[in-house]
Amino acid sequence: MNTAFNFIDLIIKKRDNKTLTTDEINYFVKCAVDKDFPDYQISSMLMAMFLNGLDNRETADLTMAMTNSGEILDLSPIEGIKVDKHSTGGVADTTTLILAPLAASCGLPVVKMSGKGLGHTGGTIDKLDSIPGFNTEISSSDAIRLVKKNNIVIMGQTQNLAPADKKLYSIRDVTGTVESIPLIASSILSKKIAAGCDALVLDVKCGNGAFMKDFNSAMELAKTMVDIGESVKKKVIAVITDMNEPLGKNIGNSLEVMEAIEILKGKAEGRLKEVALELGAYMLILGNICATKEEARTKLEENIKNGKGIEKLKELIISQNGNPEIINNYSLLSLSSCKKEIISEQSGYISYMDTYNIGKAASETGAGRKTKDDKIDYGAGIILKHSLGDKIEKGDVIAEIYAKTKEKTENAAKILNSSIKISSEPFKTRKSILKVIGA
Amino acid sequence: MNTAFNFIDLIIKKRDNKTLTTDEINYFVKCAVDKDFPDYQISSMLMAMFLNGLDNRETADLTMAMTNSGEILDLSPIEGIKVDKHSTGGVADTTTLILAPLAASCGLPVVKMSGKGLGHTGGTIDKLDSIPGFNTEISSSDAIRLVKKNNIVIMGQTQNLAPADKKLYSIRDVTGTVESIPLIASSILSKKIAAGCDALVLDVKCGNGAFMKDFNSAMELAKTMVDIGESVKKKVIAVITDMNEPLGKNIGNSLEVMEAIEILKGKAEGRLKEVALELGAYMLILGNICATKEEARTKLEENIKNGKGIEKLKELIISQNGNPEIINNYSLLSLSSCKKEIISEQSGYISYMDTYNIGKAASETGAGRKTKDDKIDYGAGIILKHSLGDKIEKGDVIAEIYAKTKEKTENAAKILNSSIKISSEPFKTRKSILKVIGA
Repeated sequence: MNTAFNFIDLIIKKRDNKTLTTDEINYFVKCAVDKDFPDYQISSMLMAMFLNGLDNRETADLTMAMTNSGEILDLSPIEGIKVDKHSTGGVADTTTLILAPLAASCGLPVVKMSGKGLGHTGGTIDKLDSIPGFNTEISSSDAIRLVKKNNIVIMGQTQNLAPADKKLYSIRDVTGTVESIPLIASSILSKKIAAGCDALVLDVKCGNGAFMKDFNSAMELAKTMVDIGESVKKKVIAVITDMNEPLGKNIGNSLEVMEAIEILKGKAEGRLKEVALELGAYMLILGNICATKEEARTKLEENIKNGKGIEKLKELIISQNGNPEIINNYSLLSLSSCKKEIISEQSGYISYMDTYNIGKAASETGAGRKTKDDKIDYGAGIILKHSLGDKIEKGDVIAEIYAKTKEKTENAAKILNSSIKISSEPFKTRKSILKVIGA
Repeated sequence: MNTAFNFIDLIIKKRDNKTLTTDEINYFVKCAVDKDFPDYQISSMLMAMFLNGLDNRETADLTMAMTNSGEILDLSPIEGIKVDKHSTGGVADTTTLILAPLAASCGLPVVKMSGKGLGHTGGTIDKLDSIPGFNTEISSSDAIRLVKKNNIVIMGQTQNLAPADKKLYSIRDVTGTVESIPLIASSILSKKIAAGCDALVLDVKCGNGAFMKDFNSAMELAKTMVDIGESVKKKVIAVITDMNEPLGKNIGNSLEVMEAIEILKGKAEGRLKEVALELGAYMLILGNICATKEEARTKLEENIKNGKGIEKLKELIISQNGNPEIINNYSLLSLSSCKKEIISEQSGYISYMDTYNIGKAASETGAGRKTKDDKIDYGAGIILKHSLGDKIEKGDVIAEIYAKTKEKTENAAKILNSSIKISSEPFKTRKSILKVIGA
């Protein structure tokens, strides 16, 4: 790599809306991870990138440069196509806990690296950590051993995964340069590629609880990631899904584990199951387990009915030192002692859910983090008793709030009350699967 | 001032092309001068300002916030309207040394704060420093005393003049955000207003040796500064002048002092005199000394002929401890000992001068600075024997180069040779005064 660049010239080039070469992008990323390099030049470049954009080649280059800035998991000892899944982040989005064991039970090797929750969204690692004994800190070698044995592992991110992305994100976070499609796309993909996957199913959330509020920007992000995937020879399918209401009924860590188990047991239906199976089906297709979506969906439904899915979850829990008894005894999972019900003051139809604020309300119970160092109350959260569009009567319970203190339930209730609107007109919700790109 | 702003929100506001309020601009400038405030947020904001621009109200607010960030010279003890002059920077631009004594000789109180040269442009302070004994480090109180006595002082910038501009410029310089009209305009005006002027004549250079290469951007800068002047109640006249060739014949510090003296003595004509008198005339008008440009031009010409101008220069030199004998004995000024002539290898017309590179060539002789800490050779420089459009014969001397070493003359010659083009077709130069705004 040619490092004889003047960084200011590169900023000016992007500022003047010109395209950076591969070498120039590599140099930018090299400077970003250099502790002695001034952040004010990086942030200036990021704002120029934000406002003038990056084309697909530049975005692919940025992705690979960030991937290569740290350790890349070598999953070649595992046979088969390794398919990963990523969600851009939503509320009551427990798809991973459903589709990972289900897909593994269908024969797909699942090496899933997941993150922790922050802000209004939860994280798979926190949910698994709510299972007594469950260990998510798995080394690369243990991960490979576990997948060879059980076809599944779910683990936290290793320390040295795409450090350039970590650094750039920490600057973007405080310089108003977060909401950029190419920067988001390269951030997501760099981590996934570093996590060793061959193919990837992306769940691009769209709606008032998602990063991408409107359909067009969700489409743009989805297309960008599918295109980058093509550039870097990783097959990517992006599914745009609705986030105008929480995906599941339960928000909070233990609570979401319970809901995932209910779905794997075949005891619950709804949008969460629908999205989990849709994403899972594309994973089976990308993994060459099934040829068509119909075949894949049928196989996944079968493994719910015949108990293979819930059995795989049990194996996962056991192999990562968790207590598998929780599957049949939810009282082994924590549930916070203070409970408050939200009662409807009128009859009508639920016509609006401010999903972002519902997520904030759940965070307020203790289920989430405001900053990275906050401690989580695994037993806290919200159970929604109704969905968008439901007809309800005055006096009906809309939601239950669980927290460690009465104050927390009250704070959450205040936000929740102003986040759900009831109107006299019937309200038709949109589908949970809005679009599929790259399939 | 309300300081309860979240800086990231302000960056996002400007990033999204919205207008910042006066309080928000004030807060930005307050943060910029706060040593503990992160530069990476300032640079991100500057790039957003660069790419999305600032309207005239925002630019005027930024100007005044930077002016108010430090000491403001109080010139009220001096009677009359204090008119300042500023050039955006050119090559062989010695107008100040001509117009300041001339205007003072016409009765205008001239308190001129000037800068040092950097890059391809020279600075008035360096030129004055080439006069043996001349002192440019004058305190505010001494400046007022000198003006009351002689009607003139030329001094370096005080330490605490618009520190916010100094800080913001130092960040812009290394983050690719220099060439922004509102940022340039506010930078210039904040310093001039802090220097205490009531009115200002701006020389906006336009051409291949200027910051503003094309006429349209020079016009935009000129208009912006005139408009800001109106907003902040300072009368501003902007004169757009040609910089497609060096303004004078001499480039270098002692050399430019000699040329200014020759013009004040009435012994030299040309574009430098023309521009100096035009700017000087507008100073006399703004200072209510003359009513019309014709009257002002006549008065200035008269004071060349009757010797009052050169007499005023002598008073200036004496009062600031310089040796006034230099006026009649140029050998008291230094002239570097190595000399090299540039000889034309063909006959024809001078059809192009790369003025920027001619300035660089002069800097290469030792007459200028590449970085702020470089030492200057006052006796170094270039004498151009011909102007753009001149008909020359093969073997004619085009220029003389003076430097301390042969190597420096050779280096300068190399640049100079490739900076001047001769063609067989006659070439018509454009006027030296291209446009006047605000008069």
